[in-house]
Amino acid sequence: MTTTNAMNAPLSSLTWGDDRLILLDQRLLPESIIMLDLYTPEEVWDAIHTMKVRGAPAIGIAAAYGVVLGARRISQDHNDNQIWLDQVLEVCKYLATSRPTAVNLFWALDRMKNKATTLIQEGHDILELNQALLTEAQAIQSEDEEVCRMIGEHALPLFHDGMGVLTHCNAGGLATAKYGTALAPMYLAHEQGIKLKVFADETRPVLQGARLTAFELQQAGIDVTLICDNMAGMVMSKGWIQAVIVGTDRVAANGDVCNKIGTYSVAVLAKAHGIPFYVACPLSTIDLNTATGNEIPIEERPAEEITEGFGKRTAPQDIKVFNPAFDVTPNEYVTAIITEKGIIQAPYNENLAAIFSK
Amino acid sequence: MTTTNAMNAPLSSLTWGDDRLILLDQRLLPESIIMLDLYTPEEVWDAIHTMKVRGAPAIGIAAAYGVVLGARRISQDHNDNQIWLDQVLEVCKYLATSRPTAVNLFWALDRMKNKATTLIQEGHDILELNQALLTEAQAIQSEDEEVCRMIGEHALPLFHDGMGVLTHCNAGGLATAKYGTALAPMYLAHEQGIKLKVFADETRPVLQGARLTAFELQQAGIDVTLICDNMAGMVMSKGWIQAVIVGTDRVAANGDVCNKIGTYSVAVLAKAHGIPFYVACPLSTIDLNTATGNEIPIEERPAEEITEGFGKRTAPQDIKVFNPAFDVTPNEYVTAIITEKGIIQAPYNENLAAIFSK
Repeated sequence: MTTTNAMNAPLSSLTWGDDRLILLDQRLLPESIIMLDLYTPEEVWDAIHTMKVRGAPAIGIAAAYGVVLGARRISQDHNDNQIWLDQVLEVCKYLATSRPTAVNLFWALDRMKNKATTLIQEGHDILELNQALLTEAQAIQSEDEEVCRMIGEHALPLFHDGMGVLTHCNAGGLATAKYGTALAPMYLAHEQGIKLKVFADETRPVLQGARLTAFELQQAGIDVTLICDNMAGMVMSKGWIQAVIVGTDRVAANGDVCNKIGTYSVAVLAKAHGIPFYVACPLSTIDLNTATGNEIPIEERPAEEITEGFGKRTAPQDIKVFNPAFDVTPNEYVTAIITEKGIIQAPYNENLAAIFSK
Repeated sequence: MTTTNAMNAPLSSLTWGDDRLILLDQRLLPESIIMLDLYTPEEVWDAIHTMKVRGAPAIGIAAAYGVVLGARRISQDHNDNQIWLDQVLEVCKYLATSRPTAVNLFWALDRMKNKATTLIQEGHDILELNQALLTEAQAIQSEDEEVCRMIGEHALPLFHDGMGVLTHCNAGGLATAKYGTALAPMYLAHEQGIKLKVFADETRPVLQGARLTAFELQQAGIDVTLICDNMAGMVMSKGWIQAVIVGTDRVAANGDVCNKIGTYSVAVLAKAHGIPFYVACPLSTIDLNTATGNEIPIEERPAEEITEGFGKRTAPQDIKVFNPAFDVTPNEYVTAIITEKGIIQAPYNENLAAIFSK
């Protein structure tokens, strides 16, 4: 594994580089921009396991390239397709252990396994097999990019030049192949010369807004201002915000939105100031089997994220702490949900179900 | 200057100890509870200047004791009252340079000067003069404590056993002689066996809620839970909060309330959840010469408080930051203002003016 310091280079969470996966080490952001060159499935496993790559879609894409790297270890002289397939399935099984609960990881590995199985039935040589596997991994990546770009395209008419936009946490390009979800319209606007003035909540306790959103928008040359979460109300009251847009971890069938802690407070503040509150996500995030937000379990995280999140203790020893990772924003606060298939508005029960049958 | 580690001792921001001022070093909270023994005006000047003592009332009281310490340096054998007075005035002038913008500091020093001038006209000996100066400093302290206690007494009927109460920043005993303003009803409730469940916003960027409020309530044995600012909305939505109470830096004649950044967001959230929003302050904080909150200048603080507030950089280099120290909560969000003379409700223009003529 070699490293490249790509400070001031255009930023991508991961790209394929002929014989290796080039991956941004997100653990070091925003202090250092280090691109890792990964040549083996073991290096990819480690990158996923130690969260050098994060964000469900980005993890899936990294794993797919890990399969490609593993398949390429079979010598071309060998030319035994069954050995090749065994090796691919072995690598898939191995990579699936890198983060046992990441749904996109399993989904991407299953897709690679299915592709490999189909390919050897078609009777290619090893070189062709490897090329076809690479094409599949690239398809996973480009489809994710396309979904994000479509979200951005659908969202873009909601934004106009000079508008102030507030976002919370990170639903950006770093978590996906490119563009992200909530940040997709900002990137597309920037490509089209539409100037938005973005405010990024720092997003305590883990500061994804400060460390990732502020970073990736700054890298892209988009006007971004970092604020503490408790400043959102004041910034809105000054008339600086015309829209809020956030990502989501799960949307219930009734349009209740589960997202990073603090999203609900932002939604209430937006409503009080008459500011539209948009949620951007792929259809895969909408779970029609979850009737309402009340059914979504909220993970509580360790107290230390609040009391000593930055290497220095900032609260008394033994203080009682409440540290929920997510909150639920009831559907009445959600102006619209923006997906790759278009914009969905209330009544959500009807309209979310309808979008899946389109 | 000697130090005492008073961990687990009852906590006071400052007390008089026969020949010295015993002062809690607030810069080291909550990691270390260090009581400083200050024997000279120079040590008191340094403690104020370096913010070992903070909170306008506490600074004023510390300065008053600094004058006492300076006066005592005149030998009793000397017995020249004019030399004594000159020394006192000199010490007052010197202590006034410790923090040039702190109103309570000047107010307390003026009061000590006036007392000294009156005393020598009455023809006491040095021993009597020094004793009378000490009595004056102790009066400043006990009057502050009494004002805070009265605020607490007036607020107490608004709270009942088992109630959840949310506060923001630190308006506690550490900033005053005892009790504080917003925290006064919590201390009095505790004295009377009324159990409140307090939630303390950590209050980014400087974390006064985490470092001071959580600390002093924990020390007092009051049930306190620390949350990040962005969790206030979720905690309210769970039905855990029946009242919000905060301090204030300035109340305008129309009842607009200027307080630590984030207070406005909390007030909007409280209103959305039907939770009363109380402001606790002495009458000295109400400024009838300020017509509305719009006239209150809002200090903007250095970006580094947000980008590297924890001793470690947590945001990209050169990122644009907005860091207002305060915000203004419009009077329509303020359920009541609680002072040492009683509870004031809307219409504030009339009722705030009336309380001063009581």
